[in-house]
Amino acid sequence: MITVLAGGVGAARLLRGLVRVVDPRDVAVVANVADDLVLHGLNISPDLDTVTYTLGGGDNAETGWGLAGETWQAMDALDRYGGPTWFRLGDRDLATHLHRTGRLAEGAGLAQVTAEIAAAWEIGVRLLPATEDRLRTMVTLGDGTEVGFQEYFVGMRHDVPVAAIRFDGAASARPGPGVLEAITDAETVVIAPSNPLVSVDPILAVPGVSEAVADRRSSTVAVSPIVGGAALKGPADRMLAELGHESSAVGVARHYRDLVGTMVIDVVDADLAPEVEAGGVRCVVTDTVMHTPEVAAALAKVTLEAIA
Amino acid sequence: MITVLAGGVGAARLLRGLVRVVDPRDVAVVANVADDLVLHGLNISPDLDTVTYTLGGGDNAETGWGLAGETWQAMDALDRYGGPTWFRLGDRDLATHLHRTGRLAEGAGLAQVTAEIAAAWEIGVRLLPATEDRLRTMVTLGDGTEVGFQEYFVGMRHDVPVAAIRFDGAASARPGPGVLEAITDAETVVIAPSNPLVSVDPILAVPGVSEAVADRRSSTVAVSPIVGGAALKGPADRMLAELGHESSAVGVARHYRDLVGTMVIDVVDADLAPEVEAGGVRCVVTDTVMHTPEVAAALAKVTLEAIA
Repeated sequence: MITVLAGGVGAARLLRGLVRVVDPRDVAVVANVADDLVLHGLNISPDLDTVTYTLGGGDNAETGWGLAGETWQAMDALDRYGGPTWFRLGDRDLATHLHRTGRLAEGAGLAQVTAEIAAAWEIGVRLLPATEDRLRTMVTLGDGTEVGFQEYFVGMRHDVPVAAIRFDGAASARPGPGVLEAITDAETVVIAPSNPLVSVDPILAVPGVSEAVADRRSSTVAVSPIVGGAALKGPADRMLAELGHESSAVGVARHYRDLVGTMVIDVVDADLAPEVEAGGVRCVVTDTVMHTPEVAAALAKVTLEAIA
Repeated sequence: MITVLAGGVGAARLLRGLVRVVDPRDVAVVANVADDLVLHGLNISPDLDTVTYTLGGGDNAETGWGLAGETWQAMDALDRYGGPTWFRLGDRDLATHLHRTGRLAEGAGLAQVTAEIAAAWEIGVRLLPATEDRLRTMVTLGDGTEVGFQEYFVGMRHDVPVAAIRFDGAASARPGPGVLEAITDAETVVIAPSNPLVSVDPILAVPGVSEAVADRRSSTVAVSPIVGGAALKGPADRMLAELGHESSAVGVARHYRDLVGTMVIDVVDADLAPEVEAGGVRCVVTDTVMHTPEVAAALAKVTLEAIA
């Protein structure tokens, strides 16, 4: 069994490659839910949905989020009311949030509802929310104000400096059903090429999770989301620098040092391999920019072999 | 000022006529909210929306409910999850529920949110929810099971016998902001041609409302929703019969006897006028079947003149 700690787009792309090289039924995904939000009364779980839509073949390859062929009637109509439309919810995407919200209101847990949605999309892998408890990434901006992650990420297009990050609710959050077992029982644990600070760290912030991963350090491998000093998507590079890390594969390796025995870094960063290894983390160099599912599959294969 | 007690479609049609013969700013509408429901976590107020969409010119003339030119992407996508799609929510209609739900979650009252939505549709009249408190029409079916109104009305297409009706929450519901004043201060109070038992009665069930209307009995006029013994829309005729009333303009007049000094009935029921008047209610006969806004305007004019 392989367990992947996952954020959104980068993780979803790696997973799409992974299920080409291993049986999807042997894959568990522990996904970030600290980006979740309640908007218009709807429970929205962007990372869960990105993984589901991508593995289910419904993803929008152009935008990297949302559904292909989406329509926007509801959002356009919402404009009439001057309501908040900064977080764009497509009409078909809305159905996912309607179902999730309705089921949660009926008393179903997020893990159960996530499994239902995943089954409807026939994604094959087990998709596990990191926690069913409330966990929220809060971002302190340069001017000292604190905002929710999506307000920073979508509302402000992550175009502002970040002074601090915290995970509200982490102290009392419990790992979601199956999460610790998935990490403990896995042959290989993979940390996907997601933003370390706001996609992976909130998973690790759930009490018990980072300990479980650290216990599997020699079987844990991370794929660097930083290539040539830059994030392929999103603000991970700036965020790392702003929060005192080195914005490089070396910085990522240092950040994960206690958790991963192996790092996979991109060929453009090959010269950084000795520095990664000097930090006590084995380093494997390969193509990590997943332009196509084929590249993603090759990356997944190399990543698994790095441990095996 | 004119105050109209209103259910959904029949009321909305009369109101569309009324605003052709009086200044909309002189009209207050006290609307039924006991048909409201929470579905997928969304707060849905069908009668408020029917009035708003109709007066705002967005109504679907074909169906009598929902919006013209509506699309159904969200509902079609919801089918994938096997979720409840018996209550069809159009994509643009969803925006109204998203806005309402979001604003209520922010702590705004239903009256305030209703006013915002009404303003966005520029409906002109003041639209007042009968109550901001929880009030729900519950329907006992022939087999003794009790269901919510929409499950009966939409889910079962009101195609089952009704044994009883009650208004859950009525005992502790308080009239919405402005409701009692609208009734007390009105020159004329109009009971719209809505279902007496499930559209108007729940408004009257809010403590204080029926007393306020009774105090204005000589200035209150009802338009019969029963024409030639049949309801123009919905199950009012069967429901009246099943619950021990006469399914006729006479039955409606008896039902409202303590509240209205005058009834407006259709020309096809002209022979019933003496019987209505024998019950102590003045009777005015005119065309009440609102095929066109012009007929609705004429009906509104006659209705107001019946009191003046």
